[in-house]
Amino acid sequence: MNIILASKSPRRKDLLEKINLKFDAIDSSFDENKVKISNNIPHKYCMKLAECKCKSVSEKHIDSLVIGADTIVYHNKQILNKPKNKSEAKKHLNMLSDNTHIVYTGVFLNIKAKDISIPFYEKSYVTFHKLSNEDIDYYIEHFKPYDKAGSYGIQDWSMVFVKKINGCFNNVVGFPVSKFFKLGLNNSTINQIIKENLNT
Amino acid sequence: MNIILASKSPRRKDLLEKINLKFDAIDSSFDENKVKISNNIPHKYCMKLAECKCKSVSEKHIDSLVIGADTIVYHNKQILNKPKNKSEAKKHLNMLSDNTHIVYTGVFLNIKAKDISIPFYEKSYVTFHKLSNEDIDYYIEHFKPYDKAGSYGIQDWSMVFVKKINGCFNNVVGFPVSKFFKLGLNNSTINQIIKENLNT
Repeated sequence: MNIILASKSPRRKDLLEKINLKFDAIDSSFDENKVKISNNIPHKYCMKLAECKCKSVSEKHIDSLVIGADTIVYHNKQILNKPKNKSEAKKHLNMLSDNTHIVYTGVFLNIKAKDISIPFYEKSYVTFHKLSNEDIDYYIEHFKPYDKAGSYGIQDWSMVFVKKINGCFNNVVGFPVSKFFKLGLNNSTINQIIKENLNT
Repeated sequence: MNIILASKSPRRKDLLEKINLKFDAIDSSFDENKVKISNNIPHKYCMKLAECKCKSVSEKHIDSLVIGADTIVYHNKQILNKPKNKSEAKKHLNMLSDNTHIVYTGVFLNIKAKDISIPFYEKSYVTFHKLSNEDIDYYIEHFKPYDKAGSYGIQDWSMVFVKKINGCFNNVVGFPVSKFFKLGLNNSTINQIIKENLNT
């Protein structure tokens, strides 16, 4: 059985490649705006998005293990989405400066033909240094983080912003690889599929 | 003033490139065996190695900012070095399994001509899942971690071993980029040199 990542994110693709998994990546054309933001229960919001992305692909690939994922940045009881412009990116980074925020990734695994659905999420705490305006401007100017929730990508230049993390690092990058792999190993069907699709 | 990384590690090179720094990498041909392992004070051991690596390069490049670094894995009051063979790598990974260990990186910055020396270190806690023999064998077989302290590289396949980290992630990869950058910004001379050598 083959594996499909329902995501266009190069970062998720890169993470699954690093664990030697054979898979195809198919962009779920799901419109994220269809899911209402619920600032009260952030993990449910990203899990719902992961499920919708996953199902929009598994409908057409019923015999595959399809992986959906969605990552959000949560701070001060507020979900920080992708910034619309420079001024919103600045606002986000100023909010995160000298503070600890939470990154959630919701994941949904689905094999439609077998009626198997496994939802889960991972949560990591990220603490930023106090950022200078100069650093924020340099980052936005050079890295244009407009495709990134919370206006930063921990694997790029903004790594200098990060004082410490508590939890899973790859979850912050965009996919909790370790939990996915361990979860696979605790579920005999998923376990078998992961093993069959590991490059030897 | 130019910057020199006194290291042949592709991981350290990669990290400094990610923060847009212009630098040269020169292998310090320092023989690590010259420094006695002190299991009692692990951070002093890696700081001493960082200093020796740094100075062996700065002697010949007195007008440069030279960066030396050394990363060690510490568990159960013992420093785990690079494994000599498959059996030692297995032993290391079995020790780290289902446990939390500490990764230290010692750093030494030196500008010989200006008599500036800045030593510091970073410390991160890494918690591993319980590893199966199958996973350990797969990892050693495919990734041959013989050049890695503690027998794993957190940025490669062994990322599936890691349940969580507490501290700086890049410190575990091999260089505490964020502390280096922030330290630079707190020291006017180093600050100026880092700024001058950031790609614009």
